Amino acid sequence: MAEGKRYFVTGGAGFIGSHLVDRLLAEGNQVTAYDKLALGRSQWLDQASRHDRFSLVQADMLDAGTLTRTMAGHDVVCHLGANTDIPGGAADPQLDLKNCTIATSNVLEAMAANDVHQLLFASSAAVYGESPLNPTPEEVGPLLPISPYGAAKLACEGLISAYCHLHDIRAWQFRFANVVGGRMGHGVIYDFVRKLRVDPHVLQILGDGQQQKNFFLVEDCVDGMLFAFRHPGGRQCDIFNLGSDSSLKVTDVARLVVEEMGLRDVEFRYTGGRRGWPGDVPEYFHDVTKMRNLGWTAKRSATDAVRIAVGRLTAQAEPAPV
Amino acid sequence: MAEGKRYFVTGGAGFIGSHLVDRLLAEGNQVTAYDKLALGRSQWLDQASRHDRFSLVQADMLDAGTLTRTMAGHDVVCHLGANTDIPGGAADPQLDLKNCTIATSNVLEAMAANDVHQLLFASSAAVYGESPLNPTPEEVGPLLPISPYGAAKLACEGLISAYCHLHDIRAWQFRFANVVGGRMGHGVIYDFVRKLRVDPHVLQILGDGQQQKNFFLVEDCVDGMLFAFRHPGGRQCDIFNLGSDSSLKVTDVARLVVEEMGLRDVEFRYTGGRRGWPGDVPEYFHDVTKMRNLGWTAKRSATDAVRIAVGRLTAQAEPAPV
Repeated sequence: MAEGKRYFVTGGAGFIGSHLVDRLLAEGNQVTAYDKLALGRSQWLDQASRHDRFSLVQADMLDAGTLTRTMAGHDVVCHLGANTDIPGGAADPQLDLKNCTIATSNVLEAMAANDVHQLLFASSAAVYGESPLNPTPEEVGPLLPISPYGAAKLACEGLISAYCHLHDIRAWQFRFANVVGGRMGHGVIYDFVRKLRVDPHVLQILGDGQQQKNFFLVEDCVDGMLFAFRHPGGRQCDIFNLGSDSSLKVTDVARLVVEEMGLRDVEFRYTGGRRGWPGDVPEYFHDVTKMRNLGWTAKRSATDAVRIAVGRLTAQAEPAPV
Repeated sequence: MAEGKRYFVTGGAGFIGSHLVDRLLAEGNQVTAYDKLALGRSQWLDQASRHDRFSLVQADMLDAGTLTRTMAGHDVVCHLGANTDIPGGAADPQLDLKNCTIATSNVLEAMAANDVHQLLFASSAAVYGESPLNPTPEEVGPLLPISPYGAAKLACEGLISAYCHLHDIRAWQFRFANVVGGRMGHGVIYDFVRKLRVDPHVLQILGDGQQQKNFFLVEDCVDGMLFAFRHPGGRQCDIFNLGSDSSLKVTDVARLVVEEMGLRDVEFRYTGGRRGWPGDVPEYFHDVTKMRNLGWTAKRSATDAVRIAVGRLTAQAEPAPV
């Protein structure tokens, strides 16, 4: 179990980042979380802070000096820091340009400066936009994202690929489906739980509820990342779809949330339209064959993932603010 | 012939941009060239300046205020402004991040602010990196560029796609092969002509000379862009490989340059290695089937394009500085 490596996790106080930090510490590694605590929350690191192998750097990835200085001496960078508010990015595209694209350029420059040669990156199925092929495998092209968020993740993938070549970096890039679980600060499940806490009788659903997506538990996500990372072979700059192979309609998610929260007779009110918001991809199926061929599959189905996520969110004092 | 539209051409004083400006003016359109005259040269616009339908805005795309103000009232944006020094971008990745990615974000914001809904964009075959499939069609994925230049062009493609969706923009994105011709300020032919003017006896060739690339005359490039733009149908955000369907080895290019310059007994000295520089793709074949199916092919082969380019460059007083 004891791998004893030094990991540097950007976005380490975020939803997925903090779960990765917990897992890496449980395995006996040293972990530095780098997070400006804007979307991330220090309370997600309460468990991590009990380890003396853990430290938190509260700083912005746009502060290239601090980023470069604090990355020194690490073996592996796990780059999960980003703007994760997709609708917010559609309203203000600077959010994704700065906190994803430019931030990633800074992370890569810091890796080159510090001779760090291993990178795990949190990309997204949003790079596919409305894919011409469903289920969508990693080889689909051309990539036509429909949100600034998806565009920024694509920009990061390209930058990482160029740095792999120019600075002898090995990269594992993961295109995530909808990751769900405790500590979520956005997304449809978070949104439903928050609304139903305010009004347990009426639930507003964005779009027509027919949007269909792949849901995927955060612990499975972290497990899949580390499985691919530790699996021998592969390309110098490799890309993996990471998700479960089952999906759910948004209306069915609403039913599961209502059920898990022990509510009854909730009226669903739809805002209408195919999309939940501008840039929302209404129907997406992740092709996870590549990970399956590597020997890994998600332990939980989309339904189980949603149920567990609701349980965790409702057990938290209050969902984190977006 | 008289289309009478108002075109806004970023990089309008550059190599390809100034040829596009000349063509659009010859057709009777109004044209504004937007160029900071860093890589572009005002002398390439001498011919354009004789038209009263032409104006030049000397400004940087990073100056979002000037960009937005001067774009007002145009029908079509042709976005060709970028860092075009690929080896320079490998040494300083900020060059591509700023002058390509961030600049394109500014161009798109200016289009949204000014209600301009048509965009022609100069992308590059560099987005493919070392393509797993040669000849390479537009549908190849995943895209793994090996230079910051290729990464930045990919970032721009993604941004453009997102803006198409969010701001009802129609985009024609062209992945160029190696465009050659008069007014070039970089590239292997420019490099050879410049070196042979200094020393007509010895020619240093970067790499082993076996690199094989598609060469393509600038007038054909401009013609292909406008053909696709004016062809009915297509996707809202469409991507086209643009080039000729023939290619040449770098050593053969050297022979053609020597011949066209009327030189003899030139000794070729190779620096060695597969690549001319870090980030150079040694072997690339452009699949131009999509443009051919649209009804367009380049008029000149790679060999003709190189000969014509050398003739034009040597007829110029002095090649433009990189």
